[in-house]
Amino acid sequence: MSRIAYVNGRYLPHGEAAVHIEDRGYQFSDGIYEVIALRDAVLIDEVPHLDRLERSLGELRIDRPMGRRALAAVLREVARRNRVREGIVYIQVTRGVARRDHAFPAKARSALVVTARRQGPSKPAATTGGVSVISLPDIRWARCDIKSVALLPNVLAKQQAREAGAFEAWFIDEAGQVTEGSSTNAWIVTDKGELITREPGNAILNGVTRRTILSLAAERQICLVERGFTLEEAKAAREAFVTSTTACVMPVLRIDDTPVGDGRVGPLSAALREGYFDYTADTHGA
Amino acid sequence: MSRIAYVNGRYLPHGEAAVHIEDRGYQFSDGIYEVIALRDAVLIDEVPHLDRLERSLGELRIDRPMGRRALAAVLREVARRNRVREGIVYIQVTRGVARRDHAFPAKARSALVVTARRQGPSKPAATTGGVSVISLPDIRWARCDIKSVALLPNVLAKQQAREAGAFEAWFIDEAGQVTEGSSTNAWIVTDKGELITREPGNAILNGVTRRTILSLAAERQICLVERGFTLEEAKAAREAFVTSTTACVMPVLRIDDTPVGDGRVGPLSAALREGYFDYTADTHGA
Repeated sequence: MSRIAYVNGRYLPHGEAAVHIEDRGYQFSDGIYEVIALRDAVLIDEVPHLDRLERSLGELRIDRPMGRRALAAVLREVARRNRVREGIVYIQVTRGVARRDHAFPAKARSALVVTARRQGPSKPAATTGGVSVISLPDIRWARCDIKSVALLPNVLAKQQAREAGAFEAWFIDEAGQVTEGSSTNAWIVTDKGELITREPGNAILNGVTRRTILSLAAERQICLVERGFTLEEAKAAREAFVTSTTACVMPVLRIDDTPVGDGRVGPLSAALREGYFDYTADTHGA
Repeated sequence: MSRIAYVNGRYLPHGEAAVHIEDRGYQFSDGIYEVIALRDAVLIDEVPHLDRLERSLGELRIDRPMGRRALAAVLREVARRNRVREGIVYIQVTRGVARRDHAFPAKARSALVVTARRQGPSKPAATTGGVSVISLPDIRWARCDIKSVALLPNVLAKQQAREAGAFEAWFIDEAGQVTEGSSTNAWIVTDKGELITREPGNAILNGVTRRTILSLAAERQICLVERGFTLEEAKAAREAFVTSTTACVMPVLRIDDTPVGDGRVGPLSAALREGYFDYTADTHGA
């Protein structure tokens, strides 16, 4: 079966799915995106993803390409046409096509691309049940709360992680604190059993999975603190993990050359990973 | 006459010139660009522009899409097919098309787009002979020396300038120093007659026009200092101007609400503006 992509009102064979060379997403990274998981054909956490999409558009003053109900229908149609029941839907909205000029064009219709593909959650190493991360200076711009396609620093960091044999790179800000990963949020569990993740702000993307995990942890009466933590604190932590739509809850067993805790998957990470899978299976994001 | 664009080996009508939705330029801002001026059908400062293009590609480890002589031939052919003798050539190279994943794809052929259009140098205000700039915090990433298409912060800054009735926004770093404009380099002339522009480094793009102006100033035995300067120093300067391929040398007569010098085009700005036009007319960048 050939893949189908939605591009500005048309359902096209994947190979023919194209945008104009003067699409501002291509020339200026002037656009935003979302990735939503499909489990049993249900869009997980659809509402917070679409809320965040609208927030990102609002911050950049890009018009919504269509209303939410119409968009929700497109997402389902793309999933259906690609026969994706377990996978992801990718949504990208840009400011549209205009003669190249940095400032916003006087007239441009925002452009919408939607794709879907089969893809299970990221798998931890079979031997250990977890992954490694490396630390890198956070060289990104100051508005990482906007889920923009200006992802070049994230690309470079992810590549550096991969070459180091790691799953992810954690960005370290000038205060020595972890902001987040190149495509995930970062979490630790302290010696006291406190679950720590950085507070929302301009330095991180407020992940949808992040927020779901906060809820699941609260339900389990785990002591939660939203605050920054240093790299040193992370290396001395009892447990660590990362979260994202595709990583779900991924245990981190090594940070740079330092094993986290005893180097094995900790109980809280395991419980939240399982809890998250139960959440997606049981509630279907309802 | 319809416009023609070069896209990955083909000369296409502008309206049909497209890139795949999984081009990494579109999804990750994983690409770079150059803009070269054409004067009397000659590519101005072609060599330093192509040197910088290769440097940007090298920093991002993107393969060159073709050798330099072939690329130079494409630039000329695009200009010729568009009958552009006075204007600009735009070159964009991305890491190519690959299934979406942050890290570099194992196999991807870098993608090349070249366009040309008629466009004269930016014009100063008819009444004053110059322009205004506003100052904004520099919220960009830490590798502005790479001429990447991750231009979203520049887009937002340029738009803010335009809405303030200004030509450009100057970015101010955490030390209170001007880094550069959203698409131009920033210059001042002190009370002592020193010409100041920030030294090359990761915080600015080392503009080709910037370097040409440094040469022209040196030929004229103007006292040059490459160093950072604060916003306050700029507001107290005798003269100020910005440089770029399209702005050439553009006098700055107002910074935020402060007139620069006596609020009129200063002698050094005027001389360098004229000198630059002579340079492009006489030498054709030879």
